[in-house]
Amino acid sequence: MLAVRIEEGRVEVRRRPRPRAKPGEALIRLLCGGICNTDLELLRGYYQFRGTPGHEFVGEVVACDDRSWVGRRVVGEINLACENCEWCRRGLGRHCPHRTVLGIVRHPGCFSEFFTLPARNLHVVPDEVRTEAAVFTEPLAAACEILEQVSIPAGEEVAVRGPGKLGLLTARVLEAHGCAARLFSRHDSVPRAAFRWVVDATGSAEGLRQCVEMTAPRGTVIVKSTVHGAVRLDAAQVVVNEITLVGSRCGPFPRALELLRTGRVRVDDLISARYALDSAPRAFRHAARRGALKVLLVC
Amino acid sequence: MLAVRIEEGRVEVRRRPRPRAKPGEALIRLLCGGICNTDLELLRGYYQFRGTPGHEFVGEVVACDDRSWVGRRVVGEINLACENCEWCRRGLGRHCPHRTVLGIVRHPGCFSEFFTLPARNLHVVPDEVRTEAAVFTEPLAAACEILEQVSIPAGEEVAVRGPGKLGLLTARVLEAHGCAARLFSRHDSVPRAAFRWVVDATGSAEGLRQCVEMTAPRGTVIVKSTVHGAVRLDAAQVVVNEITLVGSRCGPFPRALELLRTGRVRVDDLISARYALDSAPRAFRHAARRGALKVLLVC
Repeated sequence: MLAVRIEEGRVEVRRRPRPRAKPGEALIRLLCGGICNTDLELLRGYYQFRGTPGHEFVGEVVACDDRSWVGRRVVGEINLACENCEWCRRGLGRHCPHRTVLGIVRHPGCFSEFFTLPARNLHVVPDEVRTEAAVFTEPLAAACEILEQVSIPAGEEVAVRGPGKLGLLTARVLEAHGCAARLFSRHDSVPRAAFRWVVDATGSAEGLRQCVEMTAPRGTVIVKSTVHGAVRLDAAQVVVNEITLVGSRCGPFPRALELLRTGRVRVDDLISARYALDSAPRAFRHAARRGALKVLLVC
Repeated sequence: MLAVRIEEGRVEVRRRPRPRAKPGEALIRLLCGGICNTDLELLRGYYQFRGTPGHEFVGEVVACDDRSWVGRRVVGEINLACENCEWCRRGLGRHCPHRTVLGIVRHPGCFSEFFTLPARNLHVVPDEVRTEAAVFTEPLAAACEILEQVSIPAGEEVAVRGPGKLGLLTARVLEAHGCAARLFSRHDSVPRAAFRWVVDATGSAEGLRQCVEMTAPRGTVIVKSTVHGAVRLDAAQVVVNEITLVGSRCGPFPRALELLRTGRVRVDDLISARYALDSAPRAFRHAARRGALKVLLVC
């Protein structure tokens, strides 16, 4: 089968043996994959990653010991939890310290004709949701996570900094929730202490600093984007203004699928380009261009 | 009257005219003042402060247009709010953008034989509480603020980093609340991701970094101490572990006074020394020594 590989800072497409599903796992055929900023960061060398990347996908189950999955069109949660530790017992497998992560930490990713995931990670895609919309489930779930962590009343104004894919999805989730989302780019100047709710989707240390600055006393900054390395923060401002910062990562797939099914969040206009799997090097270059939104790999 | 002054990085005691209370204000005679780390920072040049410092006090009201205050032994909240803005209308005068702050921002402090505060800032000290205990009301209220902002269930273990005055008071408030407080100094090594609740009372950038590191996934760091300048934080850790950071400052005086009145928090052993007001330069030097706890100025 064909598989995308990241090796020493380069994207390659190689022939590899098809993986086998272990007990409890499904073997999945890729229908569509989405390139995420995390994939671009792996390429830049974060996490010392080498292997097959990819964690946003829609696929078809081709084998599973639970036969009811076979033939289903699915999306899947990316954290492979141990199911045994304290975190897993509390239903927080996403924070299992022993977890592997699809295409990120010690589990081969989905940018491959076939790949595996535990069946318990899978969610069936409703028939109403097109494959190219369903491939947004994972990042959309990450945007939904905000509302799992923080109770933002409908009607509130929320500033979203970072008008990339994650910022746009976040704004749409907040609008669907009844909030007024205001998008700002890194270059927009914003008054100090102007917003009670601010989402940082900039992916930059400077962006997070700006987010703290635009937050009103007693306000909340939801830190959505993973910034690598140290961020310089004005802690005195956080204390004096009693600001809360909430780190936010993966989120609930069912909520995201429901937003897509009901059309309350639309994603069609966020697709910048489609490439065949064997053109992955070009697809990665496209995704890295300034202003590019979602680049898809289609099988 | 005698008044302590900070002038160009030096503590001096000078003769100054006695202040007059404006309408709504009380004129207060100092009984006892407490030197806080913030006072030491003002001396080091933060906020470009010059004038009379001091914001922890017990005093006796000697004049007030509301005569019922006269003769009362009082403590007082340190933020002088405008009472007119949106924040004041929401009952959050502590965050009023137009506020002045006793002994910190544009209002002369309490290290002076007489000083003024709005009567609405005052709280009567219950007869059961000795003056030398009541002088801890302001920092104790700041410790109580944690429980106003974050709902920590009784029985939970809470790590408090920074075994200074604020850390000790915080640990005692948490113990009174039914938590198990575990104190750590900056030099203690602590396992990563070990605590669900962590209070940073270190006053140092490095301490805050350590606090984030020792916090479990989905855990909360309450940032209690004002660190000046930029703090280098690993934002990726905050996001991946979905950690919440809560900036926390001044707190509720009634709750602190009640803890003192009932004896649920004891503070007697936190007094390192007492000095007369005219020995303020020596008192400040003592307070700056490593290991010094509360140094009092008595009249």
